[in-house]
Amino acid sequence: MRCRKCGEPAAINMRHHKLALCSRHFPEWFVEQTARTIHKYKMFPPDAKILVAVSGGKDSLALWDVLMKLGYRADGLYIDLGIEGKGESPFTYSAQSKEKAVAFADARPEAKLIIVDIPALYGASIINVAHKRRRGNRPCSICGTVKRHEMNRVALEGGYDVLATGHNLDDEAATLFGNVLHWQSGYLQRQSPVLPADGTGLARKVKPFCRFYERETAAYALIENIDYIYDECPFATGATSLSHKETLSRMEHKSPGTKMHFYTNFLRAKAEGLFAPPDDAPRDLHPCAKCGQPTVAPDLCNFCRLWEPVEPSESR
Amino acid sequence: MRCRKCGEPAAINMRHHKLALCSRHFPEWFVEQTARTIHKYKMFPPDAKILVAVSGGKDSLALWDVLMKLGYRADGLYIDLGIEGKGESPFTYSAQSKEKAVAFADARPEAKLIIVDIPALYGASIINVAHKRRRGNRPCSICGTVKRHEMNRVALEGGYDVLATGHNLDDEAATLFGNVLHWQSGYLQRQSPVLPADGTGLARKVKPFCRFYERETAAYALIENIDYIYDECPFATGATSLSHKETLSRMEHKSPGTKMHFYTNFLRAKAEGLFAPPDDAPRDLHPCAKCGQPTVAPDLCNFCRLWEPVEPSESR
Repeated sequence: MRCRKCGEPAAINMRHHKLALCSRHFPEWFVEQTARTIHKYKMFPPDAKILVAVSGGKDSLALWDVLMKLGYRADGLYIDLGIEGKGESPFTYSAQSKEKAVAFADARPEAKLIIVDIPALYGASIINVAHKRRRGNRPCSICGTVKRHEMNRVALEGGYDVLATGHNLDDEAATLFGNVLHWQSGYLQRQSPVLPADGTGLARKVKPFCRFYERETAAYALIENIDYIYDECPFATGATSLSHKETLSRMEHKSPGTKMHFYTNFLRAKAEGLFAPPDDAPRDLHPCAKCGQPTVAPDLCNFCRLWEPVEPSESR
Repeated sequence: MRCRKCGEPAAINMRHHKLALCSRHFPEWFVEQTARTIHKYKMFPPDAKILVAVSGGKDSLALWDVLMKLGYRADGLYIDLGIEGKGESPFTYSAQSKEKAVAFADARPEAKLIIVDIPALYGASIINVAHKRRRGNRPCSICGTVKRHEMNRVALEGGYDVLATGHNLDDEAATLFGNVLHWQSGYLQRQSPVLPADGTGLARKVKPFCRFYERETAAYALIENIDYIYDECPFATGATSLSHKETLSRMEHKSPGTKMHFYTNFLRAKAEGLFAPPDDAPRDLHPCAKCGQPTVAPDLCNFCRLWEPVEPSESR
């Protein structure tokens, strides 16, 4: 395989695009494509102040890198959840992933990294909280609640116009696949590369890598010498989303472009009016009594309730 | 495994229903469930005159059997397409499948079987037509056109209230899966166990087995000694729908009930208004100049055009 632009040996062959590129032209293409996606979905204007959620993984670090290359004002946000490896593994997942995010920022004078230390700020790691709430083996929903809350808090407090996450096509296709298998109407009606700010205290969210396959973001990180954490979160093992990714990858292997068509045809059908508009009945959102973020819960939001004493009914 | 009703050894274990039944109680349950499905989706009233499309396979013969057991006036329709086995196989697929349908009807005095002989009626088998139209390796779309047309014709000419087909849950889930992978809005908005007559000459169509897994219809046919054709149509090899069935079966194996939930949650979400109403812009349907069935084509319908001389532009 030869690079379509220069004829040198190709570094990557993208069968769904019928495009092979070398290690010089692939990163160029990758950055251009990101700009096109930002433009196509009207994600943010050139002068936007962007907060990039970085996990230490390839997608989020590559996203931060590309946004800076495109000249955007983009700061990083790392949320230290206090996740340690399971079993006998000596590594601590959060410490290692934080190290990668810090090293990335240190190597780039213009990169400002904000670090939120959950155990230090709230008095417990999400593992402690999961144990307290009897969810030791599956802290993922707590992790989601904590990350969403803190990303939103920092975006609003820091005056950011938009919060960008590194979700790639494999992530989005797997999420869509799960939503479709269960026909979760609300999720299907709302899944989008852009979630607008809603005026009640939820920041605008965008996914500029939603049209890149995971192997493309990995190739970019590799070629650009971005050092990232390879391991999956130790709690991800056996997660349904991984099983959906496996199923989709098997189909992709048989028929290249399956994931891309599945996701982009969904966006097209949605834009063309396939779905009835989401139920906009007032959801009775009001500010959480403690943190002020919008919630449908009667008093404290899901996040703030995590740190309250455990009710007897919760000790299952 | 023991039968839940009598404690005898079970003939089938339906994990998605958490129900095991013996060879006496399973057929009872199967017939009752069919009645429930007919009622649930308001398929037809007790005195309806039903035309059952029978292929000689397990699903359609079992359906005919069950409808007669439930006391419905149900006649069978067999369409002889003139399909021969591929390669060295000596059997002829159409002849064998017709034999099964005829034997089934012969063994039941109340069963009236209508046979439509395509080569005799129209002067060519669908294989001849496919060759003439340069689609020798993939006559499936022609087969679909012919079957739809003839089922509709016989239903209307015979004064039947409804046309019933043996599509099972595996069929419906695979069709839905394909529609979802490509986000084909019209198909998604219209896929249903009941397609109403549309007043322009399309018969009402129903799928009373849409909630049965294929292995359940097979078990019913086996226990009830219904002799059917085991082989798939020789042209089905490599069909996309088979590949979708494989994918779904792999997921079902990991998580029993996957197909059932995928399909029934789709019907529920649809009934609850997930989709915008299908585009009812007048499709400019008018009667075919030859057969009178509704078509959007300017002169002859797709079916009638099959038997016309080949235009030079079609010789690809």
